[in-house]
Amino acid sequence: MASFPLRILLFFAAASGLWAASGDHGGLIPYLFALVGILLAAKVGGEVFERLGLPAVLGELLTGMILGNLHLAGIDWAEPLKQMRAMEAIAEVGVILLLFEVGLESHMRDLLAVGSSAMLVAALGVVMPIGLGYGVSAFFLNDAAWYVHLFVGATLAATSVGITARVLRDLKKMDTKEAKIILGAAVVDDVLGLVILAIVTGLVSSIGAGGEATIAAGPLLFIIGKAVAFLAGAIIVGRFVHVRLVRVGSRFRVPGMALVIAITHCFTLAALAAVMGLDPIVGAFAAGLVLEESDYEEFHRRGSLTVEELVRPLSTLLIPVFFVSMGLKVDFAAFASWKVIAFAAALTVAAIAGKQVCALGVLEKGLNRGVVGIGMIPRGEVGLIFTGIGASLVVFQRPILSAETVSALVVMVVLTTVMTPPLLKIFFARGAR
Amino acid sequence: MASFPLRILLFFAAASGLWAASGDHGGLIPYLFALVGILLAAKVGGEVFERLGLPAVLGELLTGMILGNLHLAGIDWAEPLKQMRAMEAIAEVGVILLLFEVGLESHMRDLLAVGSSAMLVAALGVVMPIGLGYGVSAFFLNDAAWYVHLFVGATLAATSVGITARVLRDLKKMDTKEAKIILGAAVVDDVLGLVILAIVTGLVSSIGAGGEATIAAGPLLFIIGKAVAFLAGAIIVGRFVHVRLVRVGSRFRVPGMALVIAITHCFTLAALAAVMGLDPIVGAFAAGLVLEESDYEEFHRRGSLTVEELVRPLSTLLIPVFFVSMGLKVDFAAFASWKVIAFAAALTVAAIAGKQVCALGVLEKGLNRGVVGIGMIPRGEVGLIFTGIGASLVVFQRPILSAETVSALVVMVVLTTVMTPPLLKIFFARGAR
Repeated sequence: MASFPLRILLFFAAASGLWAASGDHGGLIPYLFALVGILLAAKVGGEVFERLGLPAVLGELLTGMILGNLHLAGIDWAEPLKQMRAMEAIAEVGVILLLFEVGLESHMRDLLAVGSSAMLVAALGVVMPIGLGYGVSAFFLNDAAWYVHLFVGATLAATSVGITARVLRDLKKMDTKEAKIILGAAVVDDVLGLVILAIVTGLVSSIGAGGEATIAAGPLLFIIGKAVAFLAGAIIVGRFVHVRLVRVGSRFRVPGMALVIAITHCFTLAALAAVMGLDPIVGAFAAGLVLEESDYEEFHRRGSLTVEELVRPLSTLLIPVFFVSMGLKVDFAAFASWKVIAFAAALTVAAIAGKQVCALGVLEKGLNRGVVGIGMIPRGEVGLIFTGIGASLVVFQRPILSAETVSALVVMVVLTTVMTPPLLKIFFARGAR
Repeated sequence: MASFPLRILLFFAAASGLWAASGDHGGLIPYLFALVGILLAAKVGGEVFERLGLPAVLGELLTGMILGNLHLAGIDWAEPLKQMRAMEAIAEVGVILLLFEVGLESHMRDLLAVGSSAMLVAALGVVMPIGLGYGVSAFFLNDAAWYVHLFVGATLAATSVGITARVLRDLKKMDTKEAKIILGAAVVDDVLGLVILAIVTGLVSSIGAGGEATIAAGPLLFIIGKAVAFLAGAIIVGRFVHVRLVRVGSRFRVPGMALVIAITHCFTLAALAAVMGLDPIVGAFAAGLVLEESDYEEFHRRGSLTVEELVRPLSTLLIPVFFVSMGLKVDFAAFASWKVIAFAAALTVAAIAGKQVCALGVLEKGLNRGVVGIGMIPRGEVGLIFTGIGASLVVFQRPILSAETVSALVVMVVLTTVMTPPLLKIFFARGAR
């Protein structure tokens, strides 16, 4: 074991030398080296954390952060990773597969059983962070307009279910009621987050155009309607189409139909979610939710592996790419100012505190409420998407989020993401005592 | 079954409508729809051919050709597939995985046992097609320079092992001596093809620069040396590194290490082959060849699936993309002229006849020589790469291959590729009688 990280470093150094010499081949060769490097580095990082008794996903995230900031130490061979645009797409397929797997492990019945709690948890966990975020922003950016504060608050609203789902799985807690509430709430929360984003950007655009700062009920209802229609459609029509596809596919003689149908089902619902203006992972989760292993009985009878076993190799290779890519986005150099550090710290506290109210939304008795509050903390890619939109939304010739605010929000995303795995582990352990 | 193709068409029509509405998301959403569409179409095409008693791969190729030429019937919703640049990379990963799997099913020992035959088969199968191709080109393009004829001849030289490997597997003939000879010869042939390409392009560039038409021994030996060094290195150093990686990886506690190591091994050798100027599939084949399932005993003991089972889901999704993409490249509109059709037909005959001499290179007694001659026929992606280079190589302000010659060569590639599966099936059946 001892010299293995060193060998990985040597591999990277060699690969970076070869990189330059690797010519064209449609740009494929650098990707092959990069994928192999990311996978090995992610596994080494994950293994180190596993042995320290921490969730492996945290090691993958930190591996990405280290790779992304090596240039500060004068080592620049990981820099090309940030320029590889398709790596983002690969990472996104990774998180789609993660949520599909999480959906496969969840059952509709269990989710509905905790439906009321999930709704209440989501609603509370959206209102509080917006309020706290508004306050922190007003304190630190006292010369900024009120809609800047509102946007900062909105960025604190949406939970990113990817991190929590991965940690729950690593801790083998996916079967608990707490996990169902968190997952259900995170889906509702994603929908609420997108509604708020639509409201705030609509408002800001209207102000920028010299209009009144009013909220139009029409577009608002349209967004909510689309989201609800998609989820209902994915669950009812999705299941109907899927069962029929399986029936037809099971009569095929060519091999591989079980996986082709499962992936068709997952990718189609993920893509449809995006078409409806939702995050693709919402569709992937719904796809996993409505797929039952028993649907594939005919394939199993002919010796096929289970859907989970067939999907696992794909997710094994792609999910680490997502977590390493998230880590790569963190630029330590942005935190050179004390004011940014203080702002970031205050936002992070607001983001954490704002979600602890979620614990009050748990209606069931005897559950570990602390776990639900912690599970809702990570902001992950949803927070990054909000931040990116804020940085590109221009009012009166200025982006509504300054470079410093963007840096502070990114730190908030990273810290909430990084702290969730160990905290969840601690809170689950405390509940068990 | 009956209405299934219709449903697929409806799916495509719906998908193309959604496509336009699918917004950005890093360009991922169109890819998700495209991948799903390609997979379903490929499986339907494969199934139709399977039921007709023909190899499924042929159905996948024809599916691609149909999709690629629907625009001639006024249906243009498959056209965006041709513009998706990353699809080429996905297809190339598909053929890398195919050759890796073929390598996994092959054993070093068996290949060495037929080494002399493979060498002789390869050499005969390179010399003859160049001569015949030169002749055909000289007849049809009587006002072109001699180096044009030489280039056309060279394009006819290299066998594309991908198609033959897939057909041999579909026919469950991978274990035969004939299959080993074909695979071994195709690897040698690929190396010879690249040497010839280097010689011919060097010659043509020298003429273009007003230099003498001589062949320099230095660069020539360098190319051959690189290729031999790579193959020896991949087999000796590759195996050494791989066995040690497996040993270290088997001590990891995080899941997924067996697949991560196998894919690291495959992608690294494929990428290194490209760095050495060879086709990545040569590296992927070598990677599969030196990997023994018994190396992963420690993983199996802990309940891991075999490497073949772990790689299969990846190849199930990616290999059809390669064959459909190959089909997409064929533009029926290019064959509107009788001269092009005649030229294409003559080139195809030369390509087929030129490889039948391979049967004479089989030294072992009692083998089905006809199968070897047939198995060497498909030119596939190697022929397309050569054609692409010829179309971009400019001498005296003109590309050495005209648009008509390119079309004729593409037809030759397609016909040799399309005819091999049924011919192989017939010749194997004849041998069995």
